[in-house]
Amino acid sequence: MTSILQGKSILRTDTLTDEELDVILATADRFEKALKAGRRLDNMAGQVMAAMFFEPSTRTRLSFEAAMHRLGGDVITIADPKTSSAAKGESMADAVRVIEGYADVIVMRHPRKGSAKEAADAVAVPVINGGDGAGQHPTQALLDTFTIKKEQGTLDGLTVSLAGDLKNGRTVHSLVYLLARFDTRLVFVSPSQLRMPAHITDDLQAKGVEITETEDLSKAMQESDVVYMTRIQKERFEDPEEYERLKGAYVLDVAMVEQAKSDITIMHPLPRVNEIKTDVDGYAGAAYFRQAHNGVPVRMALLALVTGRE
Amino acid sequence: MTSILQGKSILRTDTLTDEELDVILATADRFEKALKAGRRLDNMAGQVMAAMFFEPSTRTRLSFEAAMHRLGGDVITIADPKTSSAAKGESMADAVRVIEGYADVIVMRHPRKGSAKEAADAVAVPVINGGDGAGQHPTQALLDTFTIKKEQGTLDGLTVSLAGDLKNGRTVHSLVYLLARFDTRLVFVSPSQLRMPAHITDDLQAKGVEITETEDLSKAMQESDVVYMTRIQKERFEDPEEYERLKGAYVLDVAMVEQAKSDITIMHPLPRVNEIKTDVDGYAGAAYFRQAHNGVPVRMALLALVTGRE
Amino acid sequence: MTSILQGKSILRTDTLTDEELDVILATADRFEKALKAGRRLDNMAGQVMAAMFFEPSTRTRLSFEAAMHRLGGDVITIADPKTSSAAKGESMADAVRVIEGYADVIVMRHPRKGSAKEAADAVAVPVINGGDGAGQHPTQALLDTFTIKKEQGTLDGLTVSLAGDLKNGRTVHSLVYLLARFDTRLVFVSPSQLRMPAHITDDLQAKGVEITETEDLSKAMQESDVVYMTRIQKERFEDPEEYERLKGAYVLDVAMVEQAKSDITIMHPLPRVNEIKTDVDGYAGAAYFRQAHNGVPVRMALLALVTGRE
Repeated sequence: MTSILQGKSILRTDTLTDEELDVILATADRFEKALKAGRRLDNMAGQVMAAMFFEPSTRTRLSFEAAMHRLGGDVITIADPKTSSAAKGESMADAVRVIEGYADVIVMRHPRKGSAKEAADAVAVPVINGGDGAGQHPTQALLDTFTIKKEQGTLDGLTVSLAGDLKNGRTVHSLVYLLARFDTRLVFVSPSQLRMPAHITDDLQAKGVEITETEDLSKAMQESDVVYMTRIQKERFEDPEEYERLKGAYVLDVAMVEQAKSDITIMHPLPRVNEIKTDVDGYAGAAYFRQAHNGVPVRMALLALVTGRE
Repeated sequence: MTSILQGKSILRTDTLTDEELDVILATADRFEKALKAGRRLDNMAGQVMAAMFFEPSTRTRLSFEAAMHRLGGDVITIADPKTSSAAKGESMADAVRVIEGYADVIVMRHPRKGSAKEAADAVAVPVINGGDGAGQHPTQALLDTFTIKKEQGTLDGLTVSLAGDLKNGRTVHSLVYLLARFDTRLVFVSPSQLRMPAHITDDLQAKGVEITETEDLSKAMQESDVVYMTRIQKERFEDPEEYERLKGAYVLDVAMVEQAKSDITIMHPLPRVNEIKTDVDGYAGAAYFRQAHNGVPVRMALLALVTGRE
Repeated sequence: MTSILQGKSILRTDTLTDEELDVILATADRFEKALKAGRRLDNMAGQVMAAMFFEPSTRTRLSFEAAMHRLGGDVITIADPKTSSAAKGESMADAVRVIEGYADVIVMRHPRKGSAKEAADAVAVPVINGGDGAGQHPTQALLDTFTIKKEQGTLDGLTVSLAGDLKNGRTVHSLVYLLARFDTRLVFVSPSQLRMPAHITDDLQAKGVEITETEDLSKAMQESDVVYMTRIQKERFEDPEEYERLKGAYVLDVAMVEQAKSDITIMHPLPRVNEIKTDVDGYAGAAYFRQAHNGVPVRMALLALVTGRE
């Protein structure tokens, strides 16, 4: 029997069918339960994953490497782009065509948008996009979706607030398209300079998603089942004083949590700097570390499915 | 049955009970014999160790990684602190709380004293301190103790000389507290500028340890069962001429070995620069490479014990 | 039964006996078939390979690491020379004597000619030379030879052209000595400034090898069964205009391939910059990526043979 995703590359989330998304989430759930139960898996025994990180991303890399090891597989890693053949003038297509002879699946991160697709077109083994610049970061969006489902028990009927820099955040852009497949109400919370791009909002509304926009995080939280915080970076502002004035309004603290729904789920893609105060960490709904940990079963699911090992 | 150290972090040596120390040494001995016999172990099969090196230490890292592999386990590694999330302003506590979701045990090296304890307090998995700046380096002290026991057959009734920079040497500071648990006579051999700190000497004497201090390495060796050399670094001296005058007196050579006890054990934490002449390497008692190799079974013991796999 | 190469280091190709070469090629062939068939091997289960790269070479390193994993073994890696103990003044001999306690086999790359031999002399475990500066790169020459045999079905009766910078190319220097063992006619194609060194040409002719020298790549290809391209580096020329004038003549393109024998094998050690046009990639005889992939079974053969695991 051939797996539904066998031999396919995972480059973006919008081309996944609903059935493929269901299989990924269900497989991740099964793997997560196996990990929790301390069961040893060997789906990928004898297989090799190549992690090609043309730009550093320690935790995405370690999460994929841990996922591969948890499935009994092995890993070869390029973590430092400066010492790779790219420095000698080699094309990216040539580089991945060499590596496909060493590995059964390639995980790639690259600063250039479109590079993951370019790599997948050049080779016969599946490529998983670990982030391609301003492009996509599909495994982050999948683990975010998986987390919401685990924490809230469902993906339907939820109000999800996304807060912070919605203009530049690749993570939230990928996530909203996945959430749009479910019966979800979205609240976009940002300073006016950092609003969700109009073409995305239009797109989602055309799909029938109910969207509210606001600058008021406290108020948004009071009606939310899930709040997803992102970082506001100083360098996005032309006027530094404007940054100083605004940043305090997008810091989630205990006072805000106490006015929110009692079962609110608080998320963040991490690393955080100051977007969520550490005294929030003790709340039951503070899910950001569990969210990071969910990267392992979700990436296990992707690795096993595309190589036909599940 | 729960292992005596199961779930515990290894942060320093002075909080280990005598029973825990015994179990570590006995387990390391068993693992060393298994390695020598070519037996394949799988205590840690399916488990993942995270090596988080916020400061480089190639041989400590490789020794831990080899130990994990010799137990059938897998490894994920941060070797280059510059590409980690710390650069984005993330706290160390947040960093380890993410990594604990990827791994069953964390080995950490960090330039700041107290950081290993801070990490252990933040997570639920055991943390093994691979060196925290001016703080502790417990696995080095344990492998040193293991080496003395292997080479001399006992830890009791020995005269151990420690020579070189006793003021700044984290390694010797940790080691003397372990040796103080046994019936050991200590000889501190150093230039007056680099003497063992008085608070340590006082501490040890209060515990009943017999201590002699001298500047004469040749003479100390003649009454020693073990001599432990350390490096004298030029930058520790205010007066460079003083350094030039002294350094020759702390170079162990064949002439010194020939006047020592015939079964003397010569140790060094490595890397050496010129503290032991290479023509000493051929002596039966030249134990410094065996000492480095003992890092593997000792770290195997620690990994297996804290994860309850032995 | 002891393997023919068990316990031996692989430092250069000219000291391999014909029988050893036969065993290496036959073992690689067996491993390649096992990989193709998806068979899981465990010859090196429980064993550790140390990759010590004192100079970066990502693809040689990954190829060795993949080879070790494909045999069920584990890997510890020094990829970044700047963080190693060499920076503290440690000798290379001391460094490998520490590492031999962690591993069953050492793969070393080092910028200094003769360093691999020096390492092998210092330790008891086998050392495989992954390139020692202007010295040797035996595993590249072996995988090149293996590739010619796979592609042409034989190593006898072939005309092999080597083109580009034959003066400075370590790879071609090692390869010609292996080919000289067979009934091979060699054509050296280079600008006059970059001719094969006279001592090598003399050596080979003394062994009875038929050699032709030419500057004309198109013409050489028409009579060749195999053409091996190498890069011409600008920095080798005193006069930059001379470089500009010449480089075009050593670019293999479709027009040249169409005038060559229909079953010509085209090789390149990679990375390529512009030595072979990408529109050549689609030809059946364009073997350079298969050549890179052959590094895995050939290195598997070497690892298994020197450790007595095959």
